[in-house]
Amino acid sequence: MSSSESSSADQTTRYLYDLADGDASMKALLGGKGANVAEMLRLGVPVPDGFTITTDASIDSMNAGGQWPASLWDETQEALARLEERTGRTLGSAERPLLVSVRSGAVVSMPGMMDTILNLGIGDDTVEALGAESDNPRFAWDSYRRFIQMYGEVVEGVPAHAFEDELTALKRTRAVEQDTDLSIDDLKELVEKFKGVAREHMGAEFPTDPREQLERAIDAVFRSWMNPRAGVYRKAHGISDSLGTAVNVMQMVFGNRGETSATGVCFTRNPSTGAQELYGEFLVNAQGEDVVAGIRTPRPLAEMETVLPEAYGQLLDTMKRLEGHYGDMQDIEFTVEEGTLYLLQTRNGKRTAPAAFKVARDLVEEGVITREQALRRIEAGQLDQLLHPAIDPEHGQTPITKGLNASPGAAVGEIVFDSDTAEARGKAGEAVILVRWETTPDDIAGTIAAQGVLTAHGGMTSHAAVVARGMGKPCVAGASAAKIDAAAKQVTIGDTVLHEGDTITLDGSTGEVYAGALELVPPQVNEDFSAVVGWADEVRRMDVRANADNGEDAARAREFGAQGIGLCRTEHMFMAEDRLPAVREMILADDEEARAAALEKILPMQQADFEAIFEAMSGLPVTIRLLDPPLHEFLPDLVEQALLVQRLELQGGTEEELREARLLLAQIKKLTEMNPMLGTRGVRLALLYPQIPVMQVRAIARAAFAVRERGGEPIVEIMVPLVAFAEELRRMRQIIEETLAEEFESSGQQFDYTIGTMIELPRAAVVADQIAEHADFFSFGTNDLTQTGIGISRDDAEGSFLSPYVDDDIVPDNPFASIDVDGVGGLVRLGSEGGRRTKADLKLGVCGEHGGDPASISLFESIGLDYVSCSPFRVPIARFSAARAVLDAQEN
Amino acid sequence: MSSSESSSADQTTRYLYDLADGDASMKALLGGKGANVAEMLRLGVPVPDGFTITTDASIDSMNAGGQWPASLWDETQEALARLEERTGRTLGSAERPLLVSVRSGAVVSMPGMMDTILNLGIGDDTVEALGAESDNPRFAWDSYRRFIQMYGEVVEGVPAHAFEDELTALKRTRAVEQDTDLSIDDLKELVEKFKGVAREHMGAEFPTDPREQLERAIDAVFRSWMNPRAGVYRKAHGISDSLGTAVNVMQMVFGNRGETSATGVCFTRNPSTGAQELYGEFLVNAQGEDVVAGIRTPRPLAEMETVLPEAYGQLLDTMKRLEGHYGDMQDIEFTVEEGTLYLLQTRNGKRTAPAAFKVARDLVEEGVITREQALRRIEAGQLDQLLHPAIDPEHGQTPITKGLNASPGAAVGEIVFDSDTAEARGKAGEAVILVRWETTPDDIAGTIAAQGVLTAHGGMTSHAAVVARGMGKPCVAGASAAKIDAAAKQVTIGDTVLHEGDTITLDGSTGEVYAGALELVPPQVNEDFSAVVGWADEVRRMDVRANADNGEDAARAREFGAQGIGLCRTEHMFMAEDRLPAVREMILADDEEARAAALEKILPMQQADFEAIFEAMSGLPVTIRLLDPPLHEFLPDLVEQALLVQRLELQGGTEEELREARLLLAQIKKLTEMNPMLGTRGVRLALLYPQIPVMQVRAIARAAFAVRERGGEPIVEIMVPLVAFAEELRRMRQIIEETLAEEFESSGQQFDYTIGTMIELPRAAVVADQIAEHADFFSFGTNDLTQTGIGISRDDAEGSFLSPYVDDDIVPDNPFASIDVDGVGGLVRLGSEGGRRTKADLKLGVCGEHGGDPASISLFESIGLDYVSCSPFRVPIARFSAARAVLDAQEN
Repeated sequence: MSSSESSSADQTTRYLYDLADGDASMKALLGGKGANVAEMLRLGVPVPDGFTITTDASIDSMNAGGQWPASLWDETQEALARLEERTGRTLGSAERPLLVSVRSGAVVSMPGMMDTILNLGIGDDTVEALGAESDNPRFAWDSYRRFIQMYGEVVEGVPAHAFEDELTALKRTRAVEQDTDLSIDDLKELVEKFKGVAREHMGAEFPTDPREQLERAIDAVFRSWMNPRAGVYRKAHGISDSLGTAVNVMQMVFGNRGETSATGVCFTRNPSTGAQELYGEFLVNAQGEDVVAGIRTPRPLAEMETVLPEAYGQLLDTMKRLEGHYGDMQDIEFTVEEGTLYLLQTRNGKRTAPAAFKVARDLVEEGVITREQALRRIEAGQLDQLLHPAIDPEHGQTPITKGLNASPGAAVGEIVFDSDTAEARGKAGEAVILVRWETTPDDIAGTIAAQGVLTAHGGMTSHAAVVARGMGKPCVAGASAAKIDAAAKQVTIGDTVLHEGDTITLDGSTGEVYAGALELVPPQVNEDFSAVVGWADEVRRMDVRANADNGEDAARAREFGAQGIGLCRTEHMFMAEDRLPAVREMILADDEEARAAALEKILPMQQADFEAIFEAMSGLPVTIRLLDPPLHEFLPDLVEQALLVQRLELQGGTEEELREARLLLAQIKKLTEMNPMLGTRGVRLALLYPQIPVMQVRAIARAAFAVRERGGEPIVEIMVPLVAFAEELRRMRQIIEETLAEEFESSGQQFDYTIGTMIELPRAAVVADQIAEHADFFSFGTNDLTQTGIGISRDDAEGSFLSPYVDDDIVPDNPFASIDVDGVGGLVRLGSEGGRRTKADLKLGVCGEHGGDPASISLFESIGLDYVSCSPFRVPIARFSAARAVLDAQEN
Repeated sequence: MSSSESSSADQTTRYLYDLADGDASMKALLGGKGANVAEMLRLGVPVPDGFTITTDASIDSMNAGGQWPASLWDETQEALARLEERTGRTLGSAERPLLVSVRSGAVVSMPGMMDTILNLGIGDDTVEALGAESDNPRFAWDSYRRFIQMYGEVVEGVPAHAFEDELTALKRTRAVEQDTDLSIDDLKELVEKFKGVAREHMGAEFPTDPREQLERAIDAVFRSWMNPRAGVYRKAHGISDSLGTAVNVMQMVFGNRGETSATGVCFTRNPSTGAQELYGEFLVNAQGEDVVAGIRTPRPLAEMETVLPEAYGQLLDTMKRLEGHYGDMQDIEFTVEEGTLYLLQTRNGKRTAPAAFKVARDLVEEGVITREQALRRIEAGQLDQLLHPAIDPEHGQTPITKGLNASPGAAVGEIVFDSDTAEARGKAGEAVILVRWETTPDDIAGTIAAQGVLTAHGGMTSHAAVVARGMGKPCVAGASAAKIDAAAKQVTIGDTVLHEGDTITLDGSTGEVYAGALELVPPQVNEDFSAVVGWADEVRRMDVRANADNGEDAARAREFGAQGIGLCRTEHMFMAEDRLPAVREMILADDEEARAAALEKILPMQQADFEAIFEAMSGLPVTIRLLDPPLHEFLPDLVEQALLVQRLELQGGTEEELREARLLLAQIKKLTEMNPMLGTRGVRLALLYPQIPVMQVRAIARAAFAVRERGGEPIVEIMVPLVAFAEELRRMRQIIEETLAEEFESSGQQFDYTIGTMIELPRAAVVADQIAEHADFFSFGTNDLTQTGIGISRDDAEGSFLSPYVDDDIVPDNPFASIDVDGVGGLVRLGSEGGRRTKADLKLGVCGEHGGDPASISLFESIGLDYVSCSPFRVPIARFSAARAVLDAQEN
């Protein structure tokens, strides 16, 4: 708690700024809200007067175990005095009382996750004055009871239902439906009852000194930075816990002062699609919380033109002006107090990925921003959303209902009715849809874990919608035909009754809801995205290649803009059903001759695969990795085979059956490894059975000749996996070169080629200088490097300790999804430096899933790799991210 | 082949030194033999005159694909002219012919592995002159036929048996037994026949120009550096292939010039035991090769006193002088030519480990060398021999025969009769004894793979004996009662007939051979070793601790001089049969309560273990590692359990049996991991189930209190395994500290403690600076660091690709036996530097098997670790090696 005496914080730090002293550049100190309101003041946009307590104050307070910096309360009182001076009003005065709002304001917007207290300054002494002044005593008393409720909940931790119960009881007694049907006397009675509720839960009288209330309210906002839902939100958006929140203390303006008052939220463009159209909602005679909390379903902004034409006109002008000023789509909160427009907040609006690209593209075309600025606008995390599948347009189904298309995309899952269940089942890997009457900020964890969200209530700018759009989660909001009975775990829509566990499909782009699971199709990259990615190509330094094992994938990758194949895994070709018999024959061969015969059968199949890939990638490099996995992967499972043998023994199989089953079992046992990840695979296997790589190299050579004969231009790069020792690569290089020389000799043709290696073991990174002696290129295999570097088996860890580790913040992220920068990234850096020490022009790339992850790509740019390689679908994202990485590096 | 025209080598390099231009310091250039003969010349010791071609010449020649440096042949001819001038003899002259020997001479002695040509210069033109001059035509003709045989075999590659067949045929025709029974005419006839044999195999006339012979002989010695047996020997002794060999061309002196001539080999001390006693063998009227090749069994040196008293006296004087000069036991080759003593070679004698320590200790006590010099004398590889088990002295068995105690130690194994079988079976992990009439240098691979060697023939200084001693392999030589029939694969000793596959036991220390397997006992460290290790303690910087899991091992470690426990593995305590039920109960527990109850049972057992260890190590630090292995290690095998369930299903077990078996199977399946090495173990397990480390920490605390109550002084260090992320250690530290605080509180006592971590994952080494924030010490777990760093599973690799890798020189050594210096060592260095960057005084150690390996210890010294920890038996070796590492570092 606060204390002005015992804090040891630096006395010279300034912890508070009047609105007039700030501007938009001071976001880190004043938070987004504080900085932007100050900026609006500078621009002459009407805003309520006030001051902002800095993020430093909350951080220093947090670090001191909740104790405020020594000077903060004094600064606050001085600022309050200045505000009273400027407004001609006094906090707690019965004459012209000053009412203020106390709002959180993080550096990065976290809509609804932290706390806000409105109407502070109202009390027994001031309520009458407020009523008289506004000529609206009902409004004054309603504000009073709202304040007690909000302050009680937020600052003193009184449970919300305690107040709601009293309100409900009173309405029942008075036999009225709506809050607005209560009389002034009813509200007065409610104030007394609410004070009682607070007293009961606080174990003390409700505080009446507005200065004490202010101090406690500011402290509550500080504390709300660390509340659980804010923590979950920060984690989901990669926001650091150490940023802290500013606190904005501003004079209250009232949207609930009668029929010429209103409050609303608007976007300067459509945040779902990016379209240049009016997008917003408002409520007459309401406070801002009523809109964003989704409790009353608001009206479309366009209707305001008829209700409050003057304020509406002002608002449209201001929207245009702010968008121009900031050069980005704005998300604006406003209040109209008795006809006068006030802007409470403006910020760059959260938007879906398609909207982000459309807005960026449009702004460039409108001449508002440059291409580079456009590239900087896109959030890395949003790119993933572009990969979300869509509903097959040919589905032919009829929706069971339709709500607001609050956040686009398709979601299929089983219905759940509460956030906890959504979280538990979602984390267990099940696909669920969270169905709620409305969502509250506390539903954040369930929203993250669900495939999508369906609400019966709340508008396009409700928290649910904003949060879902921010994380690219499909959301249908305000589907009012859905009658939800959360207790009975069922939802009724017309004649349809759905229960928990029933599957539905949401189309967040249209707002349609379907019973059952509709078929989904891969995402289609749209024009806006293509245009923006085209600009990215001008900026990026790294090449982008794709991982593909067949002609079809290679062709798709090329369509997506891949500049070659960075990883062609040859074992996928071995796994194909029609080839497995020959592969098993090869493995089970007793001698070299039998093995050679089996390999002879595989060769033409491999050759055909390579031909298809070389053709699809004609003129672009294709990196073919020689066989990597251990041989037992091609054999049946050990346990299954042991059970089969026992079954034949106990149930009497034929001699022949038994003999064969036992033979196979013996071979499986021989090849089974305790830790196959660390076993006989990659180059180790190749050196034990050189016939295998020889066959593969022959297939590569013959495929290249065949494609060239057909007019293609194959560019061959051969890659050796799992090298730990330079000597391994030296020998493999020799085998490959000798084999190619033989093929060149017998065919009378030849081609240029390069030979390189995966760097996917920590040792390889450490001795990269030695390995580089024998390599034309390195490709960092960061999947395996993560497994060996961290000592973490992907197959095992994701089902055991890794999820708790991520949830519990022991690791910042799943290191298989986004590279572990310090550890595995450190090894990549070490390997790159080592390799380039030996060969300054050594080509360096990365293949594996990190090659398509924006955060990882940023690291690879900083290390100076030449290319990344990722799955075909992620190629556009990688192209974009590679450009962003260049721009981000320029900034830092 | 040689060519004086086309070589492009540097014309200014000097490739040849006359004897008078060399000395002992030029070993790297002149080889051991050349440098030491030159040194003897300087000392006035009688040696034959000659010159030495440098090791550079052989290396440059090897690197140029066999082509000699341009100047070499000219230099050789000039040196020959000088030698002819000094000796007054001419190569190939019919007047006073010069005969020379052409001998290899590596920098590090490789007895018998390379080639030698004697008697070069004899021919049709010179043989008569030689006979006349020596007044011994028989000797001259015998020398001639020997030359053709040796030159033919060594230089021209004529198979040995071709000459032997002719010799045998002639002896049969003449009906004589011994070579010496052949007449001069017989020998003349043999010369012609040998020329014919050579011609037939060479496809050309036997060369008669002695200069051409000289050139080809030198080249043959060059080439013999790369022959297979020399390669195997170098590998076994860790000698680099790139050193090359010198070639010594020296005037022949003849030990086979009649009854006043002799040749012999002697050591200045006993190389088996180190005792100060006469040790050597000689043969009258023989050439040196006859002694060392073991073809004729020589006479003990002492008998020379009566046969050649004057030369004997001179020899004893020279031996004493040379030992004093070199300050080390000498291995000397000599020849007496018609009463005149010549020394052909002196070198530091190969010796067993016990002898090495005794000689070193005695030389220090005799004031010949300092303690530090003594420490430098011991070869690191020899230390291992001290760990060889001995035959239980209480065995009470009668030997079946007795031979020479050529190399001490006990060996038990199955008889094999040829080197190839010994190699194949030995490498497959079987214990075999190589039984040969005599061994030849070609038996080197079989010797390495065998437990020991038994020969029926050859003396204490035969190649077999010298090689076996050098590698600490037990050897009984010259067991002449053994009649060996290698073709029939049997050996007859008196009435006993043994076949291939029968087991015998050799006692190399007594020369006794036993049928069957005698019981072996652990090695006892002797007084000499203790004295030398005592000196080591004064020199070494690093502490030496032991790995021990119980009081008994801890007590033994302390006897061996351990300065604490570096690794106490708590899981071994979990594995004990009487504890496994409680451990399984803990694992299978459904809830926290049941788990807590099971842990409650384990706690007192753990406490008792810790008490025993703290007591044994009172006053010394004990590092206790918290539970490390994955839980499934404590459960039955998956396949076995699956088979059991199926058996119960098919054969009708009771409901109850089936239910239990299925439950256990399900749990095993849940816990089974694809790659347990990279799985849920160590700190990961501890963070998932914090009750386990809490129980362990309680047991540690209570054990410490109990021991202190009994007057002991426990020094507690708690170690967290498998840390990859700093955050893991931070949390574990908190759990440990909170638990200790509780124990301190409830007992009213406390103790000092430190908390540290294993650095055993590459990531931990890379981010060691971060981890060090929360650690008081690091212990490098180089076993696991090897597995993850190289990506190599020990359980799998040693049976699959690792042996071929070592055999085939892809890796220099098994990285689990001796640390991989560049790779894993690089990670240790990285981790040490990182840790010390954060905490300059961070204590750094290593536990695991590398902690007892001399080569690895040398690396750890260079990195600056504070201690090594190894198994109790290896503690003395580690103490010694730590000192050697300091001395070696000073040298470099």
